[in-house]
This record gives sequence, structure tokens and C-alpha cells, in this order.
Amino acid sequence: MGSVQTPHGTFDTPAFLPVGSRATVKGLTVEQLRAVGVRIVLANAYHLMLRPGHELVAELGGLHRFMGWDGPILTDSGGYQIYSLAHISTIDDDGVSFRSFVDGSAVHLSPERAMEVQNALGADIIMAFDDCPPGRDTLDADKRRREAHERTLRWLERCRAAHARPDEQALFGIVQGGTDLDLRLASLEGVCNVELPGYAIGGVAVGESAQDIRRVVEFTAPRMPADKPRYLMGVGYERDLVTAIRAGVDMFDCVLPTRNGRNANAFTPVGRIQLRNARFKEAETVLDPGCDCPACAGRLSRAYLRHLFLSGEMLGPILVSLHNLRHYQRLMLDIHKAIREDTWSALAEAWPVTRELEPTPCTNSTQQC
Amino acid sequence: MGSVQTPHGTFDTPAFLPVGSRATVKGLTVEQLRAVGVRIVLANAYHLMLRPGHELVAELGGLHRFMGWDGPILTDSGGYQIYSLAHISTIDDDGVSFRSFVDGSAVHLSPERAMEVQNALGADIIMAFDDCPPGRDTLDADKRRREAHERTLRWLERCRAAHARPDEQALFGIVQGGTDLDLRLASLEGVCNVELPGYAIGGVAVGESAQDIRRVVEFTAPRMPADKPRYLMGVGYERDLVTAIRAGVDMFDCVLPTRNGRNANAFTPVGRIQLRNARFKEAETVLDPGCDCPACAGRLSRAYLRHLFLSGEMLGPILVSLHNLRHYQRLMLDIHKAIREDTWSALAEAWPVTRELEPTPCTNSTQQC
Repeated sequence: MGSVQTPHGTFDTPAFLPVGSRATVKGLTVEQLRAVGVRIVLANAYHLMLRPGHELVAELGGLHRFMGWDGPILTDSGGYQIYSLAHISTIDDDGVSFRSFVDGSAVHLSPERAMEVQNALGADIIMAFDDCPPGRDTLDADKRRREAHERTLRWLERCRAAHARPDEQALFGIVQGGTDLDLRLASLEGVCNVELPGYAIGGVAVGESAQDIRRVVEFTAPRMPADKPRYLMGVGYERDLVTAIRAGVDMFDCVLPTRNGRNANAFTPVGRIQLRNARFKEAETVLDPGCDCPACAGRLSRAYLRHLFLSGEMLGPILVSLHNLRHYQRLMLDIHKAIREDTWSALAEAWPVTRELEPTPCTNSTQQC
Repeated sequence: MGSVQTPHGTFDTPAFLPVGSRATVKGLTVEQLRAVGVRIVLANAYHLMLRPGHELVAELGGLHRFMGWDGPILTDSGGYQIYSLAHISTIDDDGVSFRSFVDGSAVHLSPERAMEVQNALGADIIMAFDDCPPGRDTLDADKRRREAHERTLRWLERCRAAHARPDEQALFGIVQGGTDLDLRLASLEGVCNVELPGYAIGGVAVGESAQDIRRVVEFTAPRMPADKPRYLMGVGYERDLVTAIRAGVDMFDCVLPTRNGRNANAFTPVGRIQLRNARFKEAETVLDPGCDCPACAGRLSRAYLRHLFLSGEMLGPILVSLHNLRHYQRLMLDIHKAIREDTWSALAEAWPVTRELEPTPCTNSTQQC
């Protein structure tokens, strides 16, 4: 167990970051986030550059002030979003040209521009602009992966050179390489040779299998500098987190707790439940008797939550998002204890879900919701 | 200034009740409601009878337990909703037959059935089942209004006779009569002759002008028993409330703060603002510097709130609903002070909006959102 210091406070690690792409974790106030134990949130430079615009956020005092969150913030650079969300026009060493999801206008993003945007937003941790190809194998996947890895390295140097606020914002480099461990090793050596305050594993949970994710994480994480935060981007389910933490990962972000929450899918230590299911029609029980989120502490029944979803009431998504975030934060607290006291078998007993292989593929943090 | 005691606590009057038709004030947790000063909420027997069913709510421990609100609750009987929402098949002295909005099935509601439903839900204050015709003049409006008034009286006796939990649930009678003051007087005499713990003014804000509402309220309220709570149903804007309170009204409900909140329409002491408007694009100011709601206390700018609405983010409706509810609760607190200290002119200075004639018509509390 460790901690990371930022200009907006310290957070303990391992830490789970909820996703607030557009300067809001969907449906939740900052007071509610704090109350369920969130200490650092992720926002997205790509989304905020396009709307409302990073210049406006800067004029209004920066991202912390804009969204009313005075704790640590991390911004993703936009590398991943461009590949998953945008209609790319051109990509070359200069950067990427694509169409805005807001108004279809032409936008250009380069390492320099990604730094300019993130410097304007003012998050405590900012991410390098990387070339992040899809994970699924295609005919020229090997060639594309190698190109992406080499470009990511060249762009990292440009990011570092362009970063205008290194004393206030910690720039993290991103290790790429896909599922090819030789390429991962090459990326590791290249990226971690650049002296930076932290490093991330990127290009994971972009479509590959849970086994592949595990293989890549268990290979990569232990080879990253142990004295710097190690951040696994866009992962994932509880079991993925425990595996990654035991391999040395300190930070995670994922849309799962909030996206699943909006879709009536609630996490419990023994697995997820779908509240729309008819079997919860008369269910008097809470989501998880061991949970202290507003819904569980307020003794709200699964039947009531089901009623909210069937009625199309906003409060359903809100309460289950809060519950799921609290579930992740409680897991983190128990993991802190397991690390301190070396009680991993007790953790696995209390959280059976961390023992099972998750059948559904992980979802990257920053896909459009 | 007074107070009303219920089995779930006391609330000060004049009191404003937010609308939570389906056992939820849209988008807000009970903790958030309490934090902005809400002390009693309205739910709707009509909605809850159809989904999830009053029997289920009773099995799960009643409405307080179901929605996790341990303060006072008032349920509307369904009389108004049937006229505004339902496809009525037949209406006669026995009751009303209509189609369920959930599945189109045939439903019958009578005074006895309305009591059975509300007894099962278990609210602290329950409403008589009334015949509530539309407010707009039609060819046979006079005849229809008289019929409705006379039927409402007959049904009130049947409600009182059928009410199975008079020691736990206070049954309020509803004065009808539309905009015809002679008929209002006849309804007043009939309804208030039935010994009940409280009385309401119904059939107001169902389509008539603000002037007509004022005329009816100023005529009716002072003629209701002063030692019992007087409740004006479905009203309204700030000025309407002040007018009604000065005429003797103690309780109000209205969807305005939450419905307008969901539509980016924020209340301030000097009038409402539409946050989608381009003039708020760079607005650094909060909604109301005198307000202590989460958005204003958190110094969230109008520009940020606008960004949330333009991005389709749930947090916009949530924050502006909370702000608007706090606006109404703050107005109530200042009115309590004006009553105690007879400082009505100071109130009008602090709340210019209470002085102006509201241009848009009032909206009844219980229309579908």
C-alpha cells in the first residue's frame, strides 16, 4: 500500500478512479462521490476540448474549479478516444486529424496540442498522447502495433518537451505493444527510460480476451519502475484488479461501476445482479448487506430499485452507480488491508467475485456511454 | 406560522411539498431532499397503484420504508390524475373506470378503492377521492362543475366511512367548485362540515388564468377552518404562494421546481433563467449568490451547468432540481420570518419575484413528466 501526492491532496493506492469524461461522473454530485470514498477522478481531454472547450475551462479557473472537485484529477489525453470514437481522416507522425463528435468540424490533435489542452484543463496527472491501435488481430496487426509503439515513443518525447506545467502536473508515459510481449518489452524499455513521475499500461482492454489482459499485465507491471505510480488504463472487473495489484499496479480507471449502474446492473461480492429481472419484483433484501452506500445503508430493497428502473426514474441509475462505486472503493480498502497484513486468502473469502474468471470482456474506461 | 404533527414527525407551515409521484422525487436521493430542507413529500396513489402496486408496497413495509423516507408523506388520491392522464371509460357515482398507463388494462377507482390503496401505502396524510373536472370553460361547464361538486361531497362521506386507519393517517377533504365562487361556497360548506383533520383547495391550476387562481384562493382559503391545515393543491409560482399564504394557506405542492430544473430552468429571487441560453456560455456566476444549495455553495458556474445540459448529462437536471427546491424552501423560511415578525415588505424586497405577476400559467403538481 502506498500513496500519491498531488497539488490537490494525497490519495492512497491501489486507487480506483471513476470516469467523469465530460467533467462529471454521470449522475453524481461531488459530495456523493466523496461520501462513497472516491479520492481521485478521471476526466477526458478529448471530450472537454470539443465541448465546452479547454480555453473556456481555463478561463473559468481550470477543471477543478469548473466541476467543483477540489481533490486530485487525472485527464486522459485523447489518444484512445480518437481511435474508439472519432472518424479519423489522417494519422501520421505529425498527429491525428478527425471529426468532432459535437459538430463534425475538423480537429487536429498532436502531442503538442494534447499537452496544450491538458495544461489548460489543469489536472494533477496528465497522460501522454499515444498511438493506441485496436486490440483485435487484423492482417497487418503486427506492422501496425510496431508502428504504434514506435510512434508512441517519439510522441512521448514531444509531449515532455511541450509540457508547460511540469511542476504542477505530473505527466505519465504510456506503455503500448498490444498483446505481443516482445513489443511490450521494447515499449517498456523505451517509455520507462524517459524520466517521468509515473507510467501507465495502455492498449489493454481494447477488445482482447481476459486471459490476454492478464498475460500482458502480469508481464508488464512488474517491469515498470516500482518507485513510481503504475497505472493500468481502462480495467476492469474485480478479479482483473486483484490480479493487476498483485503484479504491482497502483491505479485503475473504468466505466464499469457507473455504466453498469445506469443499466440496472449491480455489483455484489458474489457477483453482479440485473435488477430488471422479474425475480427481484418482491425482493425485500438490499443490494449487499455488507455495503454502506446510500441505497444499502438506507435499507432500500431490490424491489424498490427495480421499480425505479421499470418506471424510467433517474434515481435508479443514480443509486446503483453510487452503490457500484462504493463496492469498488470497499474492495480497494479491503485490498489495502490485505497488502498491509498479507491476508489475501481472507480477501478472496470475503470477495468471492475476485476468485472467478469474469466471463464478459472488460470494457475500456473511456468509450462513449 | 404553525406546524403539523404526523406519525413521522412534525413539519412547519407554510410548507412546500416536492412531488415524488412514483415514490421518488425525480433524480434526488432522500439525503439530498433533507439537505435542501424538505420535510414532507408528496407521492401519488394513482401512479403507485398501477406500478409497482400498492399491495407490494404494503408487503414491503409501506411507502416510507419502500422509498426510504422516514419523514411525513402525503399521497394524492388519484382523482386529478384520472382526468389529466387516463383514458376514461366510464364515470358515474360508483366511480371511474379507465385504462392503466402501464399496460392498458382496465382499472376501476372508487372512493372505497382510493382509501384501500392509500391505507395500504400508509402515508401520513391521505386525500379524499374527488371528481375533478378540467378548468377550461366548455359548453356544459356549469352543469359539469355542479355535478362534480355534488359527487365530490357524496364521495367524501364514502371516503370517510371506508378509511380504515384514521388514527394513523389524516384524511383531508377537497373543496371543489372551479372558478364559480357560488359553487366554491357550496363546496366549502359541504366539505368543511365533514369533521376532518385538514382540508384542501382542489380544482385549481387545471388550466385557468393566474387571476382566476388568485380570485378563487383569496375567496376560499379564509373560509376554511383556521385551526386545521389548509392545503392548496398543485400551486405554483412564488407569487402565487405568497398570495395564498396571506389568504391563510398552509401547504402547497407543485412540480415546478423539479420539472423546470430538469429543463434547465433555474429559479432566482429576481426571476427564472434558461441555462441553455448562449448568454451563459462563459458565465462564471453561480445561479444565486444568496443560495446555499450544492451547486451554489459549491460555486458551480452557470457555464458549467449549461455545459452539463448541452452534453445531455444527468447532473444538470439533478443540480438545478436541487437548487430550485432549495429556492422554494428558502422562500418558505423567509415567509415564516415575515409571518412571525410581520415583515412582508422586507420579504418583497428580498424576493422581487413574489411581487410580479407571473406571465406563464401555473402547472398542476401531478401531471405526467
